[in-house]
Amino acid sequence: MTGSRFGNLFSVTTFGESHGPALGAIVDGCPPGLPLDVSDLQGDLDRRRPGQSRYTSQRHEADRVEILSGVFEGVTTGTPIGLLITNTDARPGDYREIAEVLRPGHGDYPYLMKYGRRDFRGGGRASARETAMRVAAGAIARKYLALHMGIEIVGWLDGIGSLRYAGMPPRVRPDNDFFAPDARWLAPIAELIETLRREGDSVGARVGVIAYGVPAGWGDPVFDKLDATLAHALMSIGAVKAVEIGDGIEVAFQRGSEHRDAMTPLGFVTNHAGGILAGISTGQAIRVYLAFKPTSSIRLPIATVGSDGKPRELEVKGRHDPCVGIRGVPIAEAMMALTLMDHALRQRGQNGEVIPPMRPIPGTREQE
Amino acid sequence: MTGSRFGNLFSVTTFGESHGPALGAIVDGCPPGLPLDVSDLQGDLDRRRPGQSRYTSQRHEADRVEILSGVFEGVTTGTPIGLLITNTDARPGDYREIAEVLRPGHGDYPYLMKYGRRDFRGGGRASARETAMRVAAGAIARKYLALHMGIEIVGWLDGIGSLRYAGMPPRVRPDNDFFAPDARWLAPIAELIETLRREGDSVGARVGVIAYGVPAGWGDPVFDKLDATLAHALMSIGAVKAVEIGDGIEVAFQRGSEHRDAMTPLGFVTNHAGGILAGISTGQAIRVYLAFKPTSSIRLPIATVGSDGKPRELEVKGRHDPCVGIRGVPIAEAMMALTLMDHALRQRGQNGEVIPPMRPIPGTREQE
Amino acid sequence: MTGSRFGNLFSVTTFGESHGPALGAIVDGCPPGLPLDVSDLQGDLDRRRPGQSRYTSQRHEADRVEILSGVFEGVTTGTPIGLLITNTDARPGDYREIAEVLRPGHGDYPYLMKYGRRDFRGGGRASARETAMRVAAGAIARKYLALHMGIEIVGWLDGIGSLRYAGMPPRVRPDNDFFAPDARWLAPIAELIETLRREGDSVGARVGVIAYGVPAGWGDPVFDKLDATLAHALMSIGAVKAVEIGDGIEVAFQRGSEHRDAMTPLGFVTNHAGGILAGISTGQAIRVYLAFKPTSSIRLPIATVGSDGKPRELEVKGRHDPCVGIRGVPIAEAMMALTLMDHALRQRGQNGEVIPPMRPIPGTREQE
Amino acid sequence: MTGSRFGNLFSVTTFGESHGPALGAIVDGCPPGLPLDVSDLQGDLDRRRPGQSRYTSQRHEADRVEILSGVFEGVTTGTPIGLLITNTDARPGDYREIAEVLRPGHGDYPYLMKYGRRDFRGGGRASARETAMRVAAGAIARKYLALHMGIEIVGWLDGIGSLRYAGMPPRVRPDNDFFAPDARWLAPIAELIETLRREGDSVGARVGVIAYGVPAGWGDPVFDKLDATLAHALMSIGAVKAVEIGDGIEVAFQRGSEHRDAMTPLGFVTNHAGGILAGISTGQAIRVYLAFKPTSSIRLPIATVGSDGKPRELEVKGRHDPCVGIRGVPIAEAMMALTLMDHALRQRGQNGEVIPPMRPIPGTREQE
Repeated sequence: MTGSRFGNLFSVTTFGESHGPALGAIVDGCPPGLPLDVSDLQGDLDRRRPGQSRYTSQRHEADRVEILSGVFEGVTTGTPIGLLITNTDARPGDYREIAEVLRPGHGDYPYLMKYGRRDFRGGGRASARETAMRVAAGAIARKYLALHMGIEIVGWLDGIGSLRYAGMPPRVRPDNDFFAPDARWLAPIAELIETLRREGDSVGARVGVIAYGVPAGWGDPVFDKLDATLAHALMSIGAVKAVEIGDGIEVAFQRGSEHRDAMTPLGFVTNHAGGILAGISTGQAIRVYLAFKPTSSIRLPIATVGSDGKPRELEVKGRHDPCVGIRGVPIAEAMMALTLMDHALRQRGQNGEVIPPMRPIPGTREQE
Repeated sequence: MTGSRFGNLFSVTTFGESHGPALGAIVDGCPPGLPLDVSDLQGDLDRRRPGQSRYTSQRHEADRVEILSGVFEGVTTGTPIGLLITNTDARPGDYREIAEVLRPGHGDYPYLMKYGRRDFRGGGRASARETAMRVAAGAIARKYLALHMGIEIVGWLDGIGSLRYAGMPPRVRPDNDFFAPDARWLAPIAELIETLRREGDSVGARVGVIAYGVPAGWGDPVFDKLDATLAHALMSIGAVKAVEIGDGIEVAFQRGSEHRDAMTPLGFVTNHAGGILAGISTGQAIRVYLAFKPTSSIRLPIATVGSDGKPRELEVKGRHDPCVGIRGVPIAEAMMALTLMDHALRQRGQNGEVIPPMRPIPGTREQE
Repeated sequence: MTGSRFGNLFSVTTFGESHGPALGAIVDGCPPGLPLDVSDLQGDLDRRRPGQSRYTSQRHEADRVEILSGVFEGVTTGTPIGLLITNTDARPGDYREIAEVLRPGHGDYPYLMKYGRRDFRGGGRASARETAMRVAAGAIARKYLALHMGIEIVGWLDGIGSLRYAGMPPRVRPDNDFFAPDARWLAPIAELIETLRREGDSVGARVGVIAYGVPAGWGDPVFDKLDATLAHALMSIGAVKAVEIGDGIEVAFQRGSEHRDAMTPLGFVTNHAGGILAGISTGQAIRVYLAFKPTSSIRLPIATVGSDGKPRELEVKGRHDPCVGIRGVPIAEAMMALTLMDHALRQRGQNGEVIPPMRPIPGTREQE
Repeated sequence: MTGSRFGNLFSVTTFGESHGPALGAIVDGCPPGLPLDVSDLQGDLDRRRPGQSRYTSQRHEADRVEILSGVFEGVTTGTPIGLLITNTDARPGDYREIAEVLRPGHGDYPYLMKYGRRDFRGGGRASARETAMRVAAGAIARKYLALHMGIEIVGWLDGIGSLRYAGMPPRVRPDNDFFAPDARWLAPIAELIETLRREGDSVGARVGVIAYGVPAGWGDPVFDKLDATLAHALMSIGAVKAVEIGDGIEVAFQRGSEHRDAMTPLGFVTNHAGGILAGISTGQAIRVYLAFKPTSSIRLPIATVGSDGKPRELEVKGRHDPCVGIRGVPIAEAMMALTLMDHALRQRGQNGEVIPPMRPIPGTREQE
């Protein structure tokens, strides 16, 4: 299996470099009959898009997506959906300066050791620009899950700088520049970003994603557990260094009597598990967290090495985000959607005839 | 792709339930010429085995593995290696009491909703017993990686109860009942386990795994990043709720100037990244952490639901571990080995002819 | 993807050498709730078994299969089904003579060049013995397809020596030693086999397989066409050198006006296509043919090369079939069943909600 | 696994309909460092292109391919190669007449039953136009195989109408409109095509493909035999109804003494096997044959059914080939290249360290 594909029954395969002519994806396995046009994808693409707010990267890309196949008379046909975004603000020339220096914290050095060469224009394939196609494909999955299964996926900025979110997961996608779940965060984040810009530094972020409405029974035992494939999906997003399900790392220090979620016929009492037990969804909301590392390309100087193996000092002057984690929110939502969509079809494939012998146990209020 | 398989070029497929007649695995894709006999697998199996120390489950399984194919005249032939462990202490009768009650924190309920039925004998396929085959298969990968590439994989108990490990990752596998990296932990852990047994409770654990000697260049960009596939592998272990790479969740609150690892021709200065950048190994030690939840089957009573949908109260009396995370150490090592082995072959497949244009940058002292 | 696995949603992975301790398989993805015990598998295994009649190999294997997992209280649970057959008549010593000579027409030489070594005991992994596990796994698929979808799969000997079958495909599996569709063939085939034994020679065979009751709509466009995956499945049987769908090689010399099958609301008029158009089932019977080459291990001497690269002459004295194609009938049925089963689940996964806008067009009388 | 992808380590995923805006492909897993530009692909695309000679379809497509990623400074980088061909002669309007009638011999009816709808414009995804992307991707594989391994792939028209080729397989690709291996065929074929056009009929074709220079040892035992994956690849080409390896269907009626290829240290004596034994290449030339059915869309009228299930009569007036098999030659070459390329990387992945214990046995003169 080659590395540019995700998913088994609903799969997305992508191509494209940061400063090449275009990015593209092939979404294969989409059920037929789903109404789809570019406007369904563009909303999510706009959420992810750099240059949209003054707080993110300064690159100006329209990110206009084209649907090149798989849709006929306004609905999907069941055949592969070809997606294309032409790069309009590619400036390969800008990157001559990093052609000969290996940026710490980036893929420059490992790509060089892996392939013996690298496309140094803005990180090439390792650029965050690659995620545009995840978001476009994820929007198709999201629409199907919403229309056919009543599933809603909501991401939010759960922590940045000294801010930590302590409330209930939001019910709807936060509609502000930072995907912040609390309006009181807006000013402090804006201030933090300004400070970082001035200082030439960056900061990480914690992102939460929740899926409401996933029925019990999705996920495969053992190696393709729902949480395992979610971890795969989410850790594959550039800059993510940790993935947590439900109570996440806290579970390491909990007691069993504290962690396990009691059940009654009226519903689950708590959701420490984050909606997954033994790798299979419980019908509770699926709740995950991601830790994004801070952008490595910052103005503050750092010791590094050139492509010639000689020592260098690097001060990055190009366009960059002081916090890539913010844009991580729609990307994480997309990967959640792609993962759930694949499991939805896998479940129907193997267990489409199953009639569970009891009524579903409702989830906690968190998902009402 | 069905869920009982892991790996692409070096794959393991498993079967078996906790109280069925046997567990088995097929390891496919192993390079030929590797000297192999059961003793290579038995050591790791013994490390994982319950009932081995008084601190873990009371089930007594010899876990004697047989190699049924793929080895001829003492070396692997390149064809699939069939592995079998016959269950000798299966007591399906013991589980009649849980036949009609759904244990909170276990797969009972989601399995029932997924498949419409469940093998209730000791958790069936969802039992930790399934991990024996991961460990047996992992031992083959581990041996190849050690012999052919000089890679060593070391796991340790990184945190339990109030203990947190703050030292350097160990260089060799801790040789004590708890895989504790510090001999001073032994008495407090023993005491904690005794207390939990008495109280009928359990506790989670944090586990660390490090791989020394992995060359730069392993891992695929985008969806099959080395960290993404590691997260998949590690999160697929039952009871794991979080996976961290390098500084893990801490990165969310670091500054870029603090996180990124400077490089000089003499070596990397730090290893916050945990040996992976942009999804590809850097040649530094690969360091990951797992959070295991506490055992859900404990003596303390809890509200739950029967298979008939009626309310019940459950008090588990069977044999169980007060801390499944301890046995998680060899399992996590095995999954690390399987993941690295697959990437080793993938790298050779695509890039076997590549000659990197510069000398490797040495890792930090952590890996010396 | 490693080579010992077949299928995506319903997969079978096998291991085992001709003269090793055992053969095994893992069948993953089977829908739950299917009544299953060893008797369901044993019938097909007995059909395939060498030594059963005086006309095939002289090896005496009981081929008793054990089900080690995935079945509970008499029905499948949805988790992987472990299968095992212990070799009872393995005689590795018999093969010392061929340890040092490379048998023409066998895998000896290419295995040696591929892996640098080979298990020479009876062909090792390349032995026809491997097919026992195909048949065991196929019997599970066959039972599901019959019970849930009314599909019947029938194989027959379509040609051998100077005999060519010209009748309609049989409706039920021929119940004779040669799977001959015509009782008048029995004496001539027995005579041919006797002659070949006496002369120390062998003969090829043409085998037909038909599947009745497959609904329209199975198969994926482009690379995973139903006929493409069938060709993969059938050509993977040792000794098969050609696969034909419907009119097969004859189509190369037909006119369009002759080949294409007219349709009326009352039914298809002909079935030159063999039940597949554009890679997707039409609802007509699926009809395929396989050409088995003659056994290469015969008593007549032949020039060859030793493992030392020196010239040799070989006269095989061991036990062998004068016509492996006869036993190919149940194996081909099994591969048809495995292929259809996988497509059945794939179709339900992607298109489980589809309601076709017109009534199915009945097939030709061939399938009534 | 979704159906629009072929290959494991070297994979191609495609999208696109006959009369949609564009066709595209993603080639993933290509080794880095291969010099590549569009001219490497255009030659093969031109060979496949309809409208090129007066003997094929009248559609006029330039088939200009763009490389959108994966190539930097003139060589491949190891990351996915995005390919795009914009349709310039799409005339969706032409197909209104077949919007309501199901063409016999085409995918119209099975697509409708599978997906509940169909893109009726020129066959949509089921059109032969899809093969352009196979040819483009195949050209990349072909170039790598030629440059790095000295492998040459040659296809030819082996039979059409009353013509049967009886000579040695050609050493170079026939450079004429019909890919005929014998110049004396040109006039009779031209005449046949003219006759068919006049009569409104069509004819099938037999195509041969040979690969020179493939080393011994490629292919996986059991399910992913080299011949099994070749059969998959070749049978996935639209209109192909039979695939033969080496002596193909003839083997069913050969004797063992006649079929098996003797070996001497100086070389194989014959190549009945077609270069593959037990699923693994022998180092002899790999020789396969395909049977293409005659075009179903012809002017001669035929009974069929409308989308409304009512009886119709169809007389196709649109642009079509009287013999699709001719254009099948470059497509078959491409699928051979893609299959070999994947096995080349798989072999290096698992067995890259193997040193065979004897010198290769040369092939027969056929490959000199």
